[in-house]
Amino acid sequence: MTVVNPAPSSPAPTNGNHAAAASLILRRVAIDTSRENVVYLNRDCEAFRAGGLQALAKVEIRANGKRILATLNVVDDTSIVACHELGLSEDAFAQLGAPDGHRVAIARAAPAESMPALFRKIADERLNRDEFHGIVRDIAGHRYSTIELTAFVVACKRGELDREEVFFLTDAMVASGRRLDWHEPLVVDKHCIGGIPGNRTSMLVVPIVAAHGLLCPKTSSRAITSPAGTADTMAVLAQVELPLDKLANIVREHRGCLAWGGTADLSPADDVLISVARPLSIDSPALMVASILSKKIAAGSTHLLLDMPVGATAKVRSMPEAQRLRRLIEYVAHRMHLSLDVVVTDGRQPIGRGIGPVLEARDVMRVLENDPRAPDDLRQKSLRLAGRLIESDPDVRGGDGFGIARDILDSGRALARMNAIIAAQGSQRFDHHHAHLGVLTFDVLAPCAGVVAGIDNFQIAHIARLAGAPKAKGAGVELFHKLGETVAPGAPLYRVYAEFPADRAFAQQAARKATGYLIGDADDVPPVAVESR
Amino acid sequence: MTVVNPAPSSPAPTNGNHAAAASLILRRVAIDTSRENVVYLNRDCEAFRAGGLQALAKVEIRANGKRILATLNVVDDTSIVACHELGLSEDAFAQLGAPDGHRVAIARAAPAESMPALFRKIADERLNRDEFHGIVRDIAGHRYSTIELTAFVVACKRGELDREEVFFLTDAMVASGRRLDWHEPLVVDKHCIGGIPGNRTSMLVVPIVAAHGLLCPKTSSRAITSPAGTADTMAVLAQVELPLDKLANIVREHRGCLAWGGTADLSPADDVLISVARPLSIDSPALMVASILSKKIAAGSTHLLLDMPVGATAKVRSMPEAQRLRRLIEYVAHRMHLSLDVVVTDGRQPIGRGIGPVLEARDVMRVLENDPRAPDDLRQKSLRLAGRLIESDPDVRGGDGFGIARDILDSGRALARMNAIIAAQGSQRFDHHHAHLGVLTFDVLAPCAGVVAGIDNFQIAHIARLAGAPKAKGAGVELFHKLGETVAPGAPLYRVYAEFPADRAFAQQAARKATGYLIGDADDVPPVAVESR
Repeated sequence: MTVVNPAPSSPAPTNGNHAAAASLILRRVAIDTSRENVVYLNRDCEAFRAGGLQALAKVEIRANGKRILATLNVVDDTSIVACHELGLSEDAFAQLGAPDGHRVAIARAAPAESMPALFRKIADERLNRDEFHGIVRDIAGHRYSTIELTAFVVACKRGELDREEVFFLTDAMVASGRRLDWHEPLVVDKHCIGGIPGNRTSMLVVPIVAAHGLLCPKTSSRAITSPAGTADTMAVLAQVELPLDKLANIVREHRGCLAWGGTADLSPADDVLISVARPLSIDSPALMVASILSKKIAAGSTHLLLDMPVGATAKVRSMPEAQRLRRLIEYVAHRMHLSLDVVVTDGRQPIGRGIGPVLEARDVMRVLENDPRAPDDLRQKSLRLAGRLIESDPDVRGGDGFGIARDILDSGRALARMNAIIAAQGSQRFDHHHAHLGVLTFDVLAPCAGVVAGIDNFQIAHIARLAGAPKAKGAGVELFHKLGETVAPGAPLYRVYAEFPADRAFAQQAARKATGYLIGDADDVPPVAVESR
Repeated sequence: MTVVNPAPSSPAPTNGNHAAAASLILRRVAIDTSRENVVYLNRDCEAFRAGGLQALAKVEIRANGKRILATLNVVDDTSIVACHELGLSEDAFAQLGAPDGHRVAIARAAPAESMPALFRKIADERLNRDEFHGIVRDIAGHRYSTIELTAFVVACKRGELDREEVFFLTDAMVASGRRLDWHEPLVVDKHCIGGIPGNRTSMLVVPIVAAHGLLCPKTSSRAITSPAGTADTMAVLAQVELPLDKLANIVREHRGCLAWGGTADLSPADDVLISVARPLSIDSPALMVASILSKKIAAGSTHLLLDMPVGATAKVRSMPEAQRLRRLIEYVAHRMHLSLDVVVTDGRQPIGRGIGPVLEARDVMRVLENDPRAPDDLRQKSLRLAGRLIESDPDVRGGDGFGIARDILDSGRALARMNAIIAAQGSQRFDHHHAHLGVLTFDVLAPCAGVVAGIDNFQIAHIARLAGAPKAKGAGVELFHKLGETVAPGAPLYRVYAEFPADRAFAQQAARKATGYLIGDADDVPPVAVESR
């Protein structure tokens, strides 16, 4: 596997102010400001006064040939940072990579070059290929403030980029980071558009298709607003933050992996955009397509299976909407030379029983071990999707995939492959028979007798999130009843697990407002109109 | 004058976590994070670990019956904040108003209640009166993150709120802060939609109409993205940050004032929205109308004169656009029971000669002193607008206002009134004969012979801003030639003043790319089609 690095970005325009500020001494300031780079200067510092800077100005720090952007905080306490020092927050210090005491230069950051294009898009204009590349390059280079990022995300959502613009955006996002080349004609991958809690089919599909012999180097995200992403759930079983060479070795040996995509620096602009889009619950087709395809193409996939759940409380609410989205993503995949298979699936309710990292990991292991307690919907859906992927193997006939996948699962070969992958990545020694769940729990009971006629994916995910998932791995929701099942009054519908009192309180407050369950008659259960095999 | 305070916002939902955290000791951390409240907790602090918090979480701090919201930064250095302490950044500390060493409680902030309404607006839905009030209440209460604020601003711009929604938004913004009542039937005010550098007519209109006897308590903003706001320029002449009672006394005695609106807490949501909208150059009609009217109504105005410059490089580019904006603001003013007079004016170029606080203050004083060097366009425009306002006096006939204003100016009564206002607010002892301008200068020369056929308001403002205005009071641009004037090759078109080398360098770089001046023939000068008297 080889890595293709992105073209270097154009050097920042000079501003003639570096020489004067070269005499500052770097000092690590032990403040964790999360992903925001902060630089601390003393108010009496010469560089601060001479540079005409002010608090919250965007500045550029240079040392050792490296350059980072940061926001300025002004300090009035020499014990935090002295007049000849330049302080950097934890992440910024790590990014710059220079040691304490090193000489650094500071200058006001030149505004991002793509600003005019950004303003044109905010004003509803159509952008060309170069303009998208400029914007994405600046985003990946952390030249955009939170305000500018948000404006771009909202403008893209509302302006409904035309399909060619979506292609330009996708292409630019691939170009903004590394690209992996596996040197094989068939590199398969699976992705779900999301919105369905508990839907961890990837963790079953990968070992199944890898056991069949297909190359499936799966990288996934951690959750931003959902109760668990694939990377969060896999992290319960094994190490997921793998250096690229280790990831490549694992894939070479076991034909698959389930790693966190962050270390590989694939489509870095995507991560920046998501950090803003998800908190706003923005899921525009344009951004969704660009995000998914750019990540997969950068990861070196040649064949992608896309799971698109449709339902009243899923991301895609109706079949016409699903068709529109499918046509868009098929067009962009075609322009990007990626083979794409879209499968529209049942999005009326969560998949599986557990929602939250440990609860979902337990479901996954139960399916792999053919445990009778394994949730059947998770098993069936995973077999279907694995089967479809297996059919990209030219030696497999259309329709035979499901049976092949089922044999691999029933025989234990999928379990063996998963265990091998877990061992290779670094096992967390998870025992699903003794799963460590949050001890602060409460049950939500059926208010009356009847049939489960609706389960609100959003509300259930919201409650699981308030309960602490995914940060608190043992937190989340365990569903006892699914659509169509009969319940007696007072029967527990689901149990919420939390690790902290505040989390339990917030989750309980939300569940009291709305349980997410609708109890009615058998006729009230919404029908599903998607392929079943 | 009396003050009407806003209705108290609903108490934050309880979350049961305050008792556990009551044992933290407040400590002021001498870090200036500008308008963002930051709370510093040590990573080993019990409240941090028990609360399931993480860096960048939004938290609520309570002490002494007061409550502020802040973003959490986690600290690994006990000399900055120890395990039993809670650190607050400078602004947050001032906002909370409790002394060092006081006991405080911290809890995770409940999400803003108006989130569902925000998401609906992002999705292009129409919002009702209560939804706008909820959103604005949360914005004024600092419950919105930068991301959420930006999303609201961009959604309002693009979604083109219908005119009734603009009324709801305006009404909500007035309700979000204080409202002043002057107990007089006629309280006049003047506002300009902006975009024209140097356009400091307010500083002439106020003393003129006050000398006539009209009540004109003018509060203004500081510039966010322009080289000077009225408050910045007035601050060169006098104190502008006046406590409300002092402001009221000055107005009672001198019939007018020119103060900064920030101390009065009028339409606080407007300030928050502007902090996000201006850096994005977003000037949606909806937000503009809501901003202007909410501020003026909250300030107690009964009659407003709105100056609307129109030109190729003004905020409003064409007469049809001006008419649309006029109709919208007239509708909302009608619903808000404000008497409104819109005057469309010449926006083809800056008004006056100076751009930047000191340069503009000098122009204003020259006009008031009837100095021959006074810029005639500033004088004429101010007389027109003052005359229009004077005509709101029921004893003045339509058409007579201009003459009355001119007499007040020529006779020196306007100067006397301005000097009285300056003395009452607190004089800065500005002598326009010895104005302190930035000493780092450069001139931009005419590249050829011809007639000044175009002056780009945006570019000139941009250059003045890079030069350091308004933060560096003596920085800015002095124009030597205006539209229609003939120039020889090499003649200085304008001079740029800066106080810091970096500023001068940035401004020169921008002026080299584009001077903002177009030299052509007499025929190239764009015509103007607005009222001249």
